[in-house]
Amino acid sequence: MFIEHRTPLSQKSKMASSSNSMKKLRMGMIGGGPGAFIGAVHRTAACLDGEIELVCGAFSSDPEKSYEMGKQLGLPTNRVYGSYKEMIEQEQKLGGMDFVAIVTPNHIHYEPAVLALRAGFDVVLDKPICFSLDEARQLSRIVNETGRTLCLTHTYTGYPMVKQARQMIARNDIGLIRKVYVEYPQGWLSRDTINSKQAKWRLDPKQSGLAGCLGDIGIHVFNLAEYITGLQVTHVCADLRTVVQGRQLDDDASVLLRFNNGANGVLMASQICAGEENNLKIRVYGENGSIEWQHANCNTLTVRWLDSPAEIYRTGTEYLSQSAIHNARVPAGHPEGYIEAFANIYRNFGRTIRAKKNGETSLSEEWKDFPGVKEGIRGMAFIETCVANSKNDNEKWTELKE
Amino acid sequence: MFIEHRTPLSQKSKMASSSNSMKKLRMGMIGGGPGAFIGAVHRTAACLDGEIELVCGAFSSDPEKSYEMGKQLGLPTNRVYGSYKEMIEQEQKLGGMDFVAIVTPNHIHYEPAVLALRAGFDVVLDKPICFSLDEARQLSRIVNETGRTLCLTHTYTGYPMVKQARQMIARNDIGLIRKVYVEYPQGWLSRDTINSKQAKWRLDPKQSGLAGCLGDIGIHVFNLAEYITGLQVTHVCADLRTVVQGRQLDDDASVLLRFNNGANGVLMASQICAGEENNLKIRVYGENGSIEWQHANCNTLTVRWLDSPAEIYRTGTEYLSQSAIHNARVPAGHPEGYIEAFANIYRNFGRTIRAKKNGETSLSEEWKDFPGVKEGIRGMAFIETCVANSKNDNEKWTELKE
Amino acid sequence: MFIEHRTPLSQKSKMASSSNSMKKLRMGMIGGGPGAFIGAVHRTAACLDGEIELVCGAFSSDPEKSYEMGKQLGLPTNRVYGSYKEMIEQEQKLGGMDFVAIVTPNHIHYEPAVLALRAGFDVVLDKPICFSLDEARQLSRIVNETGRTLCLTHTYTGYPMVKQARQMIARNDIGLIRKVYVEYPQGWLSRDTINSKQAKWRLDPKQSGLAGCLGDIGIHVFNLAEYITGLQVTHVCADLRTVVQGRQLDDDASVLLRFNNGANGVLMASQICAGEENNLKIRVYGENGSIEWQHANCNTLTVRWLDSPAEIYRTGTEYLSQSAIHNARVPAGHPEGYIEAFANIYRNFGRTIRAKKNGETSLSEEWKDFPGVKEGIRGMAFIETCVANSKNDNEKWTELKE
Amino acid sequence: MFIEHRTPLSQKSKMASSSNSMKKLRMGMIGGGPGAFIGAVHRTAACLDGEIELVCGAFSSDPEKSYEMGKQLGLPTNRVYGSYKEMIEQEQKLGGMDFVAIVTPNHIHYEPAVLALRAGFDVVLDKPICFSLDEARQLSRIVNETGRTLCLTHTYTGYPMVKQARQMIARNDIGLIRKVYVEYPQGWLSRDTINSKQAKWRLDPKQSGLAGCLGDIGIHVFNLAEYITGLQVTHVCADLRTVVQGRQLDDDASVLLRFNNGANGVLMASQICAGEENNLKIRVYGENGSIEWQHANCNTLTVRWLDSPAEIYRTGTEYLSQSAIHNARVPAGHPEGYIEAFANIYRNFGRTIRAKKNGETSLSEEWKDFPGVKEGIRGMAFIETCVANSKNDNEKWTELKE
Repeated sequence: MFIEHRTPLSQKSKMASSSNSMKKLRMGMIGGGPGAFIGAVHRTAACLDGEIELVCGAFSSDPEKSYEMGKQLGLPTNRVYGSYKEMIEQEQKLGGMDFVAIVTPNHIHYEPAVLALRAGFDVVLDKPICFSLDEARQLSRIVNETGRTLCLTHTYTGYPMVKQARQMIARNDIGLIRKVYVEYPQGWLSRDTINSKQAKWRLDPKQSGLAGCLGDIGIHVFNLAEYITGLQVTHVCADLRTVVQGRQLDDDASVLLRFNNGANGVLMASQICAGEENNLKIRVYGENGSIEWQHANCNTLTVRWLDSPAEIYRTGTEYLSQSAIHNARVPAGHPEGYIEAFANIYRNFGRTIRAKKNGETSLSEEWKDFPGVKEGIRGMAFIETCVANSKNDNEKWTELKE
Repeated sequence: MFIEHRTPLSQKSKMASSSNSMKKLRMGMIGGGPGAFIGAVHRTAACLDGEIELVCGAFSSDPEKSYEMGKQLGLPTNRVYGSYKEMIEQEQKLGGMDFVAIVTPNHIHYEPAVLALRAGFDVVLDKPICFSLDEARQLSRIVNETGRTLCLTHTYTGYPMVKQARQMIARNDIGLIRKVYVEYPQGWLSRDTINSKQAKWRLDPKQSGLAGCLGDIGIHVFNLAEYITGLQVTHVCADLRTVVQGRQLDDDASVLLRFNNGANGVLMASQICAGEENNLKIRVYGENGSIEWQHANCNTLTVRWLDSPAEIYRTGTEYLSQSAIHNARVPAGHPEGYIEAFANIYRNFGRTIRAKKNGETSLSEEWKDFPGVKEGIRGMAFIETCVANSKNDNEKWTELKE
Repeated sequence: MFIEHRTPLSQKSKMASSSNSMKKLRMGMIGGGPGAFIGAVHRTAACLDGEIELVCGAFSSDPEKSYEMGKQLGLPTNRVYGSYKEMIEQEQKLGGMDFVAIVTPNHIHYEPAVLALRAGFDVVLDKPICFSLDEARQLSRIVNETGRTLCLTHTYTGYPMVKQARQMIARNDIGLIRKVYVEYPQGWLSRDTINSKQAKWRLDPKQSGLAGCLGDIGIHVFNLAEYITGLQVTHVCADLRTVVQGRQLDDDASVLLRFNNGANGVLMASQICAGEENNLKIRVYGENGSIEWQHANCNTLTVRWLDSPAEIYRTGTEYLSQSAIHNARVPAGHPEGYIEAFANIYRNFGRTIRAKKNGETSLSEEWKDFPGVKEGIRGMAFIETCVANSKNDNEKWTELKE
Repeated sequence: MFIEHRTPLSQKSKMASSSNSMKKLRMGMIGGGPGAFIGAVHRTAACLDGEIELVCGAFSSDPEKSYEMGKQLGLPTNRVYGSYKEMIEQEQKLGGMDFVAIVTPNHIHYEPAVLALRAGFDVVLDKPICFSLDEARQLSRIVNETGRTLCLTHTYTGYPMVKQARQMIARNDIGLIRKVYVEYPQGWLSRDTINSKQAKWRLDPKQSGLAGCLGDIGIHVFNLAEYITGLQVTHVCADLRTVVQGRQLDDDASVLLRFNNGANGVLMASQICAGEENNLKIRVYGENGSIEWQHANCNTLTVRWLDSPAEIYRTGTEYLSQSAIHNARVPAGHPEGYIEAFANIYRNFGRTIRAKKNGETSLSEEWKDFPGVKEGIRGMAFIETCVANSKNDNEKWTELKE
C-alpha cells in the first residue's frame, strides 16, 4: 500500500521512530472540560505522535466538571484540579508537568499563562493570545523575563502546503509580492445562536474581547497572510458589522490591507456566510506568478505562472521544500487534515522545548517553526486597529502599531 | 449523442427553428478593424443564431484599414465606410441597416451612438457605455427622446447560470441578502505593456476615461453583483492602485460596498494578478443559503444551504428556471461558453427590437433581459465614485449617485 | 477586456480575418428537420466562423416537414427539397452547392453519401459513418474513386486541449504509452424511453445498426483514444448489456482493450448512468507521466509527472502547441465549448476542400486535421468486433480487423 | 473556531469523553520495525483516540532491530521480543496484552494470527488477510473455534463518507444498483524498483502471494465495492499484466465484474500509472441516481440524481447518516484524512472487543462496523479467481467462489 520510494528518509523516520526513545513530554491542560470542544482537539493533536502525554488538568472552573473530565480521560484523581492556580502550584511542587495547554475562552488566557510562565512552565495558548493588546504586550515581557517558550495555536500555519507556500515565496519564486487576498467564510452563526455555548462566549465582549468574528477567525487569516508572505500589515481600512440582530460584537468583517513592501490586500472573515463550512483561502500575487491555498483542499497548493502552465503541489511528494516534507507523515495521496496540522504545531513546540531542556543547540529550523508571542501581539494589534478604524468614518486608513 | 428527453421543448426549438422564417436583422459595425479583437467576438456572437447578419461597417478611422476589413469579411465595397458618420448617413438613406454595433475604445462611444440613435438606429455598445457619467446621462436622455433601444454588452449577464442565480434570488430561495463578494482577477497587465495595442488604449486616460482596470473589468463585476442580487450599491470605499510603474491609470482595485438593503460586499478587480486568466467570480450570501458562480466553470452554479447538502445546478438541465433554459442551446454536459453568452445578449436584443418593429407586444420577459442604458449609467457612476473616494483619505464611504 | 499579449498573432487573425475575403462555402443539408437536434448543431457550427453558409436542404423524408424547416431557416423555396436524391441531382445541375452535411439516423448515411460523392460533392457525415463495417469499407472505396473529401464529425477531437494532448504524446512528452482509460457515462437512457424520438431510433436495430450505446457514444471514446495516443486497438474483450428491459440493443458497454504497442486499456460507455450528463474522459499513462482530459472541463488538460508537480494546461494560452492554438478563438479564461469544437471540425474541413478546389498545396497540417473515412472504418470495425466478442463466452479476446 | 451547533451531541462526546474512563486496551505489535512504514501508521491510528496503548512488540524477525524499535518507542525492554512466538507465549503468561496487530508482509500473516488466536488474543491484520484462499478459509475456522475477533484493516471503509454512501444505498436512495465502477491508480511502481524494500516484497511471489498489484491495492477497491453496495461479485473477467520488465507478479490489473443482483462493473488497479498518487475512486449507478467518492477528496460524497441537481455531502455535517457522524471527529470544514479513517477501524474494533470482554450486549451497530475474516476470504477468492481467469483465454467469465 505504501509508497516507499516517494518518501524521503527524513520523512519516513518521523513516524517510525518519532521519539528516538525520548521520554514523553508531560502536558497539563487548563480548560477543555465536558462540552468543550477545542480541548479535545488539543489533547488528540498533542498526543498524536507519541511524544507528549496528558498527565494532569484543571478542566473547568467548576471542580466537579473538572473531576468528571479527568476521570473520563483516565487521569489519577490527584492530578485533576479544581482550579488552574491549584494545578500550577501543585505541579510545580511535584515536578510532574513539563508544559501547560490553555484552552479556555479569551478572558482566561492571560492570568493562567502568567502563572504558568512564572512557575517555570512552557505554555501553549489557543488563539487569540489574550483579551487585549495590552495584555499581549505584558505577556510578551513575561515570556522574555522567564525565558519560557510560548506557543500560540494558529493551526493553519501547521499545514504542509502552507509551509511550502511560505518557502516558495521566501526564495522569491513568484517575485515581489503585489497583492494578498485572504478570506475566511463560515456559516455557523448565520442564525440566532442564543442557545449555543460555543457561540455565546465568542459573542460576549466580556469573554471574547473587542471583536467577535474578527478575533475568532479573522486573526487566523491575518496571521496566515503575514506568515506565508513574510510581510507585515501596516494599515487597515475595516468594515466590521453585526449582521444578526441582538449581538454585541461583529459577526462579519471586511478589511482592506496595506503591507510594508507596498503590496495591498483584502481580508474577509465572516460567520454569517450561510452554507460555508470553514473555508479559509489565501491567494498571493507576485510579479511572476501566484500561489493559492484553500483549507477545503488542504493538501494541494496551486502555483500559477505568467507564461507557463499552473502547477499543482501536493502534500507527501518528494519535490516539496524541506519544511513541507518535515510537516507531513504519510506519502502523497493519503490525505492529512486538521488534526495533523494541529499536531505539527505541538510536535514542533515539543521538540523545541525538549531541545532547550537538554541544551541541544543543533535543532533544525523546521522544528522551531511554530507561532508564538510575537504573532500573538500582531493579532491583538490587528483586532484593535480594525475595531478603531471601523468606528471612524473620517479616517480611511489606520496604522497598525504593535 | 443528444439527450432529447432532458431538453424541454422550449429549448429544443430555439436552435432548430431559431428564426421562424424571420428575415435576418441587418447589423452595421463601428470599429473592429484589423488587429482589433472584440469586434470579431461581436460579429461571431451576433450571427451565431442565424438571426442577424453583418451588412456594413466603418471598421477603422483609417479608411484603408476599414476597407481591408470589409473585404476580408466579404462585404460589398459600397457598404464599407471610411468613417462612422458617413456610414450612418448613407445607411439611413439606403434603409439597409437595422442597428449598429459600436466596438471602439471608450472615448469613441458617445458620438457615434448619438448619431446612430438620432438617425433612427438601435445601438449595441461595448462596455463601458461611454467616457464619463455626464456622457452616460446625456445618452440616456437621447435614448428616451429617440425611443430607440440601446444594448450594453455586459457579457457575463448572458450566461445561463447567471440567469439561474438571479432568478433563485429573486424568488427568495436563499432569503434576505447579507453579503456579496465579487472578484475579477486577471494577470495580463502584470508586466509592462508598452507595446500592446490592447493595453495601450485601456491605460490611456484620453481613450479610456477616469479609470483603467476598474473601468475595463471592475464594472463587469459591479454590474454582475447588481444584476444577480437585484440590489443597488449605495456607498463605496475604494482602494485603486497603479502597481506597474509608469501607468497613468489604475491596474488594481479593491472596493468595499454597501447595498440598499443593508447588505455589504467586497469587489476586487485587478489586472496584475499574475497567473490568473479571466476568472471572475461572485458569491452571494443570504439568510438561508448562498450561491456561487465562477466564470472558469461557467456552466455550474453552486448553491449551499445552512442545513442540507450543497446543490450543483448545471446548464442544459430541465430543472432550471425558465430564464436559464431560455439562454442555453445544447443539452446538459455539452459545455457552452463565452461566445454563446455573448450571443445570448445579441439574440435577446435582436428579438426585442424585432418585436418593437413588428408591433408585437407579447414578447416574453426572457427576450427583454439584456443590459442597457440604465446599467451603463450605474457603471459610470460607480467608476467616478470610486475614483473620487480612492483619492480622499478623510472620507471612508462615498455615496454612489446616478 | 481582451488579453492581447497572450494571444499569438496566428490566433488573433483567425477571428478578425477568418475568411480573407473568401467566398463562403455553400452547404446543403440532409436531415435535421423539425424536432431533430443534431442538425441544428451542425448548422450553427458550420456557420460559426463565417466561412460556410447553408444554401439548401432536404431536411426530412417527409417533404412537408422539409419545407417547413427550409422556411424557418429562411431558405428560398426552390432550394428546399423533398428528398435527398432530388437535392443532389438538382444541385449538381445548378452548381449551387459545394458540399453536403448528412445528419440522418445511421441507416440513411450510406446511400446519400454515395450519391453525393458520385455527384462530385464533398461530404460531412455525422458519426457513426454508416450502418455496418461492410458499408464503411464500400464507402471508403467510393471516396477513393471519386477523389472527394469525407469528414466524420467525431466532435471531441475538435477540442483544443484534445489537440494539445495528441501533440504532447506525439512528441513523446510522457514516454511510451502503457495504459489508456476512457469512459463515457451518460444518464439519459436510465429510464424507459418509449416516447423519445431521439432514443427510439438509437435503440432500433433497423436504424441504428448492431449496437446501441456502443455505436452512439462508445465509438466517440474509441476514436478519441486512438486519436490522442496515435495507437490502434488490436483486440477487445467486451461486455455489452441491455440494462433497461425491453430494449433490443445495448445501453451499457464495458470493454477491455489491447493496443498495437503493447499498451492495454479500458473503455466504458453507458447511457444508464443516472445523474451523468455527457461526461467523457480520457486518461493516458506513459512511462514518465500521464494526461487527463474530461469533457466537463474541456478547456483544461491535466498533465501529471512522476517526479514533479502536475501541470494544468489551458485553452487560449500562449504556451500551447500549434495545433491547440489553431483550434481556439478567444484568449485564455474565456470558455470555449461544444459548438466551438464542432465548428473546428467544420472549419478545418472547409479550408481543406477550399484549398483542394483552389489547387493550393501549402495548407498547413492543422487545417487538414479532421476525422474522415479511415476513422469511420475503424469505428465500425470496433462495433462489430465488440458485438461479436460480447456474445462469445469462450473467446476472451477478439482481434479487431478493419 | 468551532462550530458547536453543527455538531450533534453524539459526535461531540466522541472526542471529549472518548474513553468514559475506560482502561486503555493493550496492544502488541508483530512487524513494524525500523524502515517499515505501515507499522507506524497502525500505531498512530490505534492510539489516536486515547483508547488503546502499545505495550509490547516483536517488531522484526531480527531481534536487534526489534529491540531498537522498542527502545525508540519507549517500551520497557522486557516487553520487546525477538520473535512473535516468544511474544505471544510470554504475553499469554503475563496477561499483559489484549490484542495483537500483525503488520508483516503477507506470507507472515497466517502463522502469527493463528498462534495469537489460539492463545486467546484478538487480532488486527493488515490486508490482505493472508497468503492464499486456503489459508484464509483455515483462519476463518480458527476464528470461529476460538471465538476471538479478527479485524482486517481495509482502511478505506473507515472514511465517514464511505459510510454515508453505504447507508444511502442500503436505504435504497438511488434505487436498484446497475453498475459499479472502481479504480485505484498509483504511479509509484512506474519505474524499476529493484532497490525499494517496500516494492520488493510486494513483487516477490514468495512473500506477496499469487498477485502483486491486485493483492496490494486491487482488493481494497474490490472490498470497497462490495462494502458500499452490499452486493457480491459473482464473476470476473480479468486482464492482469506485468508492465515493467523483470517483475514476477502483476503491476496492473483491469477486471470486468458481475454482481449477484445482475449489476455489472469495472475494476481497475494499477501501480504503473505515472503521476497518480493513491487515487482510488468509486462510482455506483442506481436506477434513480448515483454516488461518487474519491479518496483525494475524502470528505466529499457526490450524489447525482436523474431529475434534480447533484448534491454534495460533506464530513462533519449534521444531515449525514448516523454511521457517517459516528466515524468523524471534527466539525464540517476541518478535513479529516487517512490516519483518522484508519483510527476509525481501530476504535470500532476496540470498542467491540471491550464490549465482548465486559459482556455488554447493547453496543450499537456503528461500533461493530469494521472488516473481518469474511472480507478477508472474499478478497483472497477474488485474487485467486482473477489470476486463474487472466491466464485462460478460452474462458471469459470465471465464477468467484469463496
